[in-house]
Amino acid sequence: MSSIPKTQKAYILTQGVEKLSLEDRPVPELKPGEVLLRVRASGLCHSDLHILDGSISLSSLCSLPASPILGHEIAGEIVAHGPNVDPDLFPTNQLYSVFGPNPCGLCSECRYGRDNLCLSPTRLIHGLGHPGGFEQYTAVNIRNLVKVPEGISPEVAAVTSDAVLTPYHALKKVYLTGLSRVLIIGLGGIGINAVQIAKAFGAHVTAFDLKESSRELARKFSADVVLDSLTVKEASHDYDVVVDVVGIQSSFEIALKQVKTYGSIVLIGLGSPVLNFFTTPLCLKETHILGTFWGTSQEQIEVFDLVKKGKIKPQVEVGKFEDLNEFFQKLKHGQIKSRVVITQTD
Amino acid sequence: MSSIPKTQKAYILTQGVEKLSLEDRPVPELKPGEVLLRVRASGLCHSDLHILDGSISLSSLCSLPASPILGHEIAGEIVAHGPNVDPDLFPTNQLYSVFGPNPCGLCSECRYGRDNLCLSPTRLIHGLGHPGGFEQYTAVNIRNLVKVPEGISPEVAAVTSDAVLTPYHALKKVYLTGLSRVLIIGLGGIGINAVQIAKAFGAHVTAFDLKESSRELARKFSADVVLDSLTVKEASHDYDVVVDVVGIQSSFEIALKQVKTYGSIVLIGLGSPVLNFFTTPLCLKETHILGTFWGTSQEQIEVFDLVKKGKIKPQVEVGKFEDLNEFFQKLKHGQIKSRVVITQTD
Amino acid sequence: MSSIPKTQKAYILTQGVEKLSLEDRPVPELKPGEVLLRVRASGLCHSDLHILDGSISLSSLCSLPASPILGHEIAGEIVAHGPNVDPDLFPTNQLYSVFGPNPCGLCSECRYGRDNLCLSPTRLIHGLGHPGGFEQYTAVNIRNLVKVPEGISPEVAAVTSDAVLTPYHALKKVYLTGLSRVLIIGLGGIGINAVQIAKAFGAHVTAFDLKESSRELARKFSADVVLDSLTVKEASHDYDVVVDVVGIQSSFEIALKQVKTYGSIVLIGLGSPVLNFFTTPLCLKETHILGTFWGTSQEQIEVFDLVKKGKIKPQVEVGKFEDLNEFFQKLKHGQIKSRVVITQTD
Amino acid sequence: MSSIPKTQKAYILTQGVEKLSLEDRPVPELKPGEVLLRVRASGLCHSDLHILDGSISLSSLCSLPASPILGHEIAGEIVAHGPNVDPDLFPTNQLYSVFGPNPCGLCSECRYGRDNLCLSPTRLIHGLGHPGGFEQYTAVNIRNLVKVPEGISPEVAAVTSDAVLTPYHALKKVYLTGLSRVLIIGLGGIGINAVQIAKAFGAHVTAFDLKESSRELARKFSADVVLDSLTVKEASHDYDVVVDVVGIQSSFEIALKQVKTYGSIVLIGLGSPVLNFFTTPLCLKETHILGTFWGTSQEQIEVFDLVKKGKIKPQVEVGKFEDLNEFFQKLKHGQIKSRVVITQTD
Repeated sequence: MSSIPKTQKAYILTQGVEKLSLEDRPVPELKPGEVLLRVRASGLCHSDLHILDGSISLSSLCSLPASPILGHEIAGEIVAHGPNVDPDLFPTNQLYSVFGPNPCGLCSECRYGRDNLCLSPTRLIHGLGHPGGFEQYTAVNIRNLVKVPEGISPEVAAVTSDAVLTPYHALKKVYLTGLSRVLIIGLGGIGINAVQIAKAFGAHVTAFDLKESSRELARKFSADVVLDSLTVKEASHDYDVVVDVVGIQSSFEIALKQVKTYGSIVLIGLGSPVLNFFTTPLCLKETHILGTFWGTSQEQIEVFDLVKKGKIKPQVEVGKFEDLNEFFQKLKHGQIKSRVVITQTD
Repeated sequence: MSSIPKTQKAYILTQGVEKLSLEDRPVPELKPGEVLLRVRASGLCHSDLHILDGSISLSSLCSLPASPILGHEIAGEIVAHGPNVDPDLFPTNQLYSVFGPNPCGLCSECRYGRDNLCLSPTRLIHGLGHPGGFEQYTAVNIRNLVKVPEGISPEVAAVTSDAVLTPYHALKKVYLTGLSRVLIIGLGGIGINAVQIAKAFGAHVTAFDLKESSRELARKFSADVVLDSLTVKEASHDYDVVVDVVGIQSSFEIALKQVKTYGSIVLIGLGSPVLNFFTTPLCLKETHILGTFWGTSQEQIEVFDLVKKGKIKPQVEVGKFEDLNEFFQKLKHGQIKSRVVITQTD
Repeated sequence: MSSIPKTQKAYILTQGVEKLSLEDRPVPELKPGEVLLRVRASGLCHSDLHILDGSISLSSLCSLPASPILGHEIAGEIVAHGPNVDPDLFPTNQLYSVFGPNPCGLCSECRYGRDNLCLSPTRLIHGLGHPGGFEQYTAVNIRNLVKVPEGISPEVAAVTSDAVLTPYHALKKVYLTGLSRVLIIGLGGIGINAVQIAKAFGAHVTAFDLKESSRELARKFSADVVLDSLTVKEASHDYDVVVDVVGIQSSFEIALKQVKTYGSIVLIGLGSPVLNFFTTPLCLKETHILGTFWGTSQEQIEVFDLVKKGKIKPQVEVGKFEDLNEFFQKLKHGQIKSRVVITQTD
Repeated sequence: MSSIPKTQKAYILTQGVEKLSLEDRPVPELKPGEVLLRVRASGLCHSDLHILDGSISLSSLCSLPASPILGHEIAGEIVAHGPNVDPDLFPTNQLYSVFGPNPCGLCSECRYGRDNLCLSPTRLIHGLGHPGGFEQYTAVNIRNLVKVPEGISPEVAAVTSDAVLTPYHALKKVYLTGLSRVLIIGLGGIGINAVQIAKAFGAHVTAFDLKESSRELARKFSADVVLDSLTVKEASHDYDVVVDVVGIQSSFEIALKQVKTYGSIVLIGLGSPVLNFFTTPLCLKETHILGTFWGTSQEQIEVFDLVKKGKIKPQVEVGKFEDLNEFFQKLKHGQIKSRVVITQTD
C-alpha cells in the first residue's frame, strides 16, 4: 500500500460560481467502520449541473452542513482501514464502488431493506452533502462498499452505481415476466440501461426517443420495437409497465395513455417540477403511478452481477481528472451521448 | 312465485331532461344464464346526478346503445329462471344483490380475478348502459348474483354493493396490518365505510372532513383520530396509506404531504377532472398513487360477510319508488347525509 | 361446416381392463354456452396410465358419475355452436385448445382468478370425469376455449395445455427476475418445458436428471448448467427456486438442501405419495414449500403466446387415433421421451 | 451512571452439566459501535433446556467458539458507550431490549431487510454463541438496541423480544385482513401471543390446545372459537392460515387438513425433528408450507408498539437472578404456564 499524503487535490464548489475550483484539502481522517478510498473514477450527473447553476441548492438536500465536494458515482481502491474494520473482509487489491445514499442502517426504512430511502436526519449522500468523488481520497463506511467483480473497469463501476442501479430498482418495483410488455420513454444514459435490464428479465421492450442516435443504441441492445413517435392521442393500452425516464408532461401523458388496465407507470425522470393526470381514466383503468429513487445497497450488489454476466453493457465516455470542468460544459451543452466518468491514475 | 306481468313501470332517462319519466315498459325476456329479479331496492349515486344534468353522457361509458334505465346499486328477489339456470343453486326465497360491473368472464382481466376492470367492448354496466334498478323487474346473469346473508335488508344490500365495496376494494389494494396508519380524507357515504373497514383490518385510522356531522359519524365508528383541518403546509409523513375520497387538488395535496415514505395514496374520489403533483418529492419518497374503481365480484361476496358480522354498518336513508325524482333533488342539494335507497314493495 | 353425424367413435374405459375399447357413442348434445369440437389432437398423460391400471380411481376425482372417455389435453375445431354462443366470437376456421380444469366460474377460487382450483362440487375435469379427448366430437363450454395462434399445430396445442401450462403456473408462483437462480429436478416432458420457461423469464437455470438423453435436451434448450448428480450431502443453498418435477424423497431432499435461505421449493411431481422434511433447517432457512396444480385459464392463454413467440418449443411424438392403446403401452414401458399426442384427421 | 466494576457474576454452562454455575467473570470491553448494558431481565426458553440437557449443542449453532453464557431474551439499561456511539442517540435513562439474532448488517439477507436470517459465518446469536443475558453486564452493538417504550417493564420487554416477535413475524408472512380465518395450534407462551396478534390484525381466530388452562387464556384474549379437539379425519378446509406452534406430526396433519385451498401453514414449532405430508392433496389444494424463524429487527421495534398500545399483553412469570437454576427445573417439569423471566436489581 502506498503511503498516504496528508493533503490532496479536490474540486471545491463555491455558491454562485459555475466552475469548480481545484484546491488542496486535507485527506480525511477515518472514523471507526470507515476505509479510505483512492478514487479511481467519478461520474458526472445532470443533477450536479443543477447544483452548479444554482437551480438546486445542496443545503436543500441535507440538514447538516454540506461538503463542497461533489461526485456521487464513485469507484476506487482501499488504501487505509479505519478502526474496527477487518482488512481480510475488505482487502486492498480490489476495486470497490460506493453506495451513494450512505444510509444510517438503523432507521425503519434501512431495516426494511429500503436503505435508499433512509430516514435519518443526519445522513449525507456521497457527493451531495458528504464529500464525494471529485477528490483524490474519500472516506467511506464499509456499509457502503460494494465489491466490483473482476473485469469491470473503474469507469463502468462508477456508472453502474447510479445509471444502472436506478433503472434496475425501478424495474424491480414491478414484477416483470417473460410475457411482460414494457415501454421505455427516453433512451439516454438511464433509459438505455432500462432497455437492457427489461430484456434481461425476459420482457418485450418497446423503446421510444426523439433522437435517432438514442434509438440506434436501443436497436443495438435488442429492444423489440423502437419508436420515434407516440402521439398522445392514440391510446394503445398495451404496456404492463411504462418507465418514464423523461418526466415532462408530454412523456407522462404518453405513459398514461399507453399503459394497460391495471398497469404501472414508474417515474424516474424529473424533467418537469409538476405533472398532472386525468382522474377518471386513472381510476377506471386502476393505473398505478410509482415514484422511484436510485436503488438499495443490495440492488447495487446485484447490478454488478448483471454487468459481470454481460447482460448490461453500460455506455461511458471517459475524461481526465484535470478536465472535469470542461466535461461539465460538454454535458451542459448536450455533447455527451451516454454518461461521462472522470478517471484518476497515480 | 307470483305470476310475472308482461309490462312494468320503469323510470326513463331522456337526454337533456333532468327528471326521469315513469313509463310502462316490457318486462325483459331472459337469455340463457339469466334470472329475472323483482327489484326491492336501488341506490341513488352522485354519478347518476352527473348523467341527469348532462355533465356525463351515458354513451361515453359504453360502445353499445345504452339503456335509458339507470340504477346501479340493486337488490331483489328471483321471480323467474332463464334457460340453463339451476333453480336449486339460485333459489327464490332469497335476497340477492347485483354485481354492477357485469363482466364478460372471458377477457384477461376477468380471468385474472379483476372482473371490475372487464375489458370486453360489449359489456354494459347495470344501470349505466344495461337496464338498471329503477324499474320493477330486471334481468341479471347468474355470474352477477351475490346472495345477501339473512338479516340484511334490501336497502343495506343495495348500498353494500357500491358504497361498501368500493372502499373495501381500495383498502385491499394496500396490505393493512394491525400497525398500519391510515388517513381517510372525506367522510361521506364512502369515506365513513372506509373508516369502518380500516378499523376492521386492525389499522389505526385518522379521519378528516370539513363537516362536523361527518366527523361525528367517524367518531361513532371508532376512528382513532378525527380532524377538522390538515393544512397542506405541515407534512407529517405519518400515514402508510391515505385514501382520498374527495379527489380535488387540495385533498390530493394533503394526501401527498401526509403520506409516509414508501406509502400509498389510493384515489377513489373524482372531484376534479385533473390533479397534479410535484415530481421530486414523489420520487424521493417513492410515493405510490393508485387509481381504484368499484370492486370485484368476489369482494362483493366478502363485504356482505363484513356487514353480516357487524364490522361495517352502512348508513342509509330510504325513499319510495314513486318519490325517486324528489330524492334526486335532495341529493343534488346536499340534503342527504349518507346514501339514499329507493325501495319497492308489492 | 361439414354435417355432424349422430354417432361417433370413442375410446371407452372399463374398470379393471387396461385396454380402452373403441365403441360407437352418440355425439353430445350442446347445452347453452357450449360448442361442439371436432377433436384433432389429444395428449396421453401418466395420470391416464394410473387410471388404466387401477391405481387411481376416476370416481375419487369427482363426486358426480364420471364419463368413461379419457383425454385431458385436447385441441380441435368448432363444428357447431350451442345456444347463447356468438359464432362471431368463436369462429369455426380456428384451432382451439381446451382448458381442462373446466371450472364453474362462480366459486371464490374462480372469482379470485385461480380457476384451476375451482371449488364447485359438481365440476368435472375434461377427460377425468367430463368426456375427454379420446373421442371424435366433444362438447366444451366457451369459458374453456383458448384460441390457438396461427402456426401452432394441433399436437403442440394439446401438449401446451398441460405440459407447458403446468410448469408455467409453477414458475409464476415465485417471482423470477434476470438474476434468479433456478434448479429444475427432472427433465421429462414437464421439466424440459420448465427449463425453457425459466430461461424465457431471464433466470439462470441449472437442470438435473439422471438420464443423459434428458440432459442433452436441457443443453439444447440453453440450460446454463446441466448436472447428472446432486448428492444430498452437499448443501449448496444456492438456488432461489427449486422446481421438483419428480416428487420422490430423494429429489425432495436435494431440493431442501440446495434451496437458498428464504427460497422456495415448488412441488409439481407426485412420484411418492408421502414426503418428509427436517423441521429445524426448514425454519432456520425459512424455506417455502409450494404445492402446485396445473394452471389457470388465463395462463393457458399466456403460454400460447410464449409458444407462438418461439420462447418454448414443446416436444411431441405423434400417433394415430386407431393406435391409441399401443401408445399407452409405449408410455407405460418408458419408450416415450417427451409427450405423446394422438391426432385425428377426417 | 454508577461506576462499572471490572468483574461481574455470570452463569456459566459446562458441557454435560445440567446446572449452570454462577462465577466471576470480567465485564466485557466495548468495541466501536457497542454499548454496555446492565442486564435487568432475561427470559428462559425451551431451547435453553435442550442445550442444558445436551440434546442441542451450542457449537452446532455457530462456527466460531461459543460463549458459555446463555440467555437470548434480554432487556437492560446502558451504563457505558463504546467508541463511535453517540450518547445522545442512545441515552442511559432508557430501557432497551436486545435484538437477539445479532446480524452483520452487510450480507444480502440483512440488506434485504431479513436480518433474522443473516448469512454471516461469523455472527453469534446473543445467548446462543455470543454472551447472553445470564450475566450482569453484556455488550451489545447499537444495531441490536431496541428502545422499550415507557410503561413496559423489563420482564415484559425480555419476553416481547422473542415470544411476541416470533408469532408476529410468522403472521406478517401471510397477509391477514379483517376477513382472514386463522387457526392457531398450541396455546403456550408463543401461541397465546399469536392469538392476540391475529386479533389485532382483524382476523377471525380459532385457537386449539389440549390443555384447558391454555384454552382459558385464549378465551380471555378474545379468540373467536376455542377448541379442545380437532380430529385429523375431519378436513374443514376452512382456514386461510394455520399457525402450527407445536410442530409434531399430529399437529401438522391437522394443519394440512384444516387449511383452505391456496392457504398457508406457518410452521413455528419444532416439536418433532421430521414431519411428513401427502403430496397429492398438497398439490391439488396448492397448500403453502412456510418455515419461520424469530423475527427481524424492524419487527422487534413494531411489536413494542403493539405491546405499548395494549393490543398484546405478554404473560410472564418472574424469578430472581439467584434462582435461575431452580426456574429451569420448573420449566423442565412443566410448572411454568407462560414464560419465565429472571430479573436483576442492583
